[in-house]
Amino acid sequence: MTKEPKKLAELFHDTLKDIYFAEKKIFATLPKMAKAARSKELKAAFEKHHGETKGHIERLEEVFSIIEKKPQGKTCAAIVGITDEGAEIMDEYKGSPALDAGLLAAAQAVEHYEMSRYGTLRAWAEELGLDDAVSLLQATLEEEEATDEALTEIAKTAVNQEAQAA
Amino acid sequence: MTKEPKKLAELFHDTLKDIYFAEKKIFATLPKMAKAARSKELKAAFEKHHGETKGHIERLEEVFSIIEKKPQGKTCAAIVGITDEGAEIMDEYKGSPALDAGLLAAAQAVEHYEMSRYGTLRAWAEELGLDDAVSLLQATLEEEEATDEALTEIAKTAVNQEAQAA
Repeated sequence: MTKEPKKLAELFHDTLKDIYFAEKKIFATLPKMAKAARSKELKAAFEKHHGETKGHIERLEEVFSIIEKKPQGKTCAAIVGITDEGAEIMDEYKGSPALDAGLLAAAQAVEHYEMSRYGTLRAWAEELGLDDAVSLLQATLEEEEATDEALTEIAKTAVNQEAQAA
Repeated sequence: MTKEPKKLAELFHDTLKDIYFAEKKIFATLPKMAKAARSKELKAAFEKHHGETKGHIERLEEVFSIIEKKPQGKTCAAIVGITDEGAEIMDEYKGSPALDAGLLAAAQAVEHYEMSRYGTLRAWAEELGLDDAVSLLQATLEEEEATDEALTEIAKTAVNQEAQAA
């Protein structure tokens, strides 16, 4: 069987499905992480990002609409792996002063995965001349970067010290 | 069964095993990606990073030695997921003008995962007062960041345009 070679527009669509699946998985996971977190600051950060994630899902649905496709997810092995590691931390470090440091690290791994995907999708949208999609993807990318920076700040000011001092 | 609560030193050790496994997996994967890449620039970038990855593995072995542990990997579900996605791209986009764009995106997802892990480990090493480990982890973090930037440059100047034009 010979297949037609796939082009950038298809790669863009495939990767959009990947991150759509990932955002939905993250949306389902964040309340569990917020519940598990010991520090108020970290709990609040997870709750805030949960609200933002809803907006990211909606923006992705707009991008699907721009390319005239139905919003559809495709299992993203990467995010499954990253969130499985987070779940392992919640289990192994339950009741431990290092729990929050581990949760925070898991959340930053998620943010970095998303930053790489949104950076890629934005670049491809530019190449494909999808200007409205560029703006939507850029807006989410900036929120993911801000979340990552906020988590770094929480790590520095509270979580890592507590993990060590306890 | 009650367990002793785990502390930051254990979390550091666990995460060190995670990234040690990841680096070895990446070291095994990069030659396949270099072989699959169509553009000379991307091939060269993967080959260069393959050499650097060997150095990252050695630095991690030094960090294990600083905390007086034997170098040991622990299956990292995240990197398995990310590299599985890369393998899927190599398969689905074989012979396609968009192959390199997909490979490049997969490599950037790998870099971002590593950047998040090294950033976390460096912060924990600081907290634990492991100054020599901080320097080693910082050195690798900077190389991962430089690789990510180099890949973005290759995407902009060659790969994405070719994927679209073909």
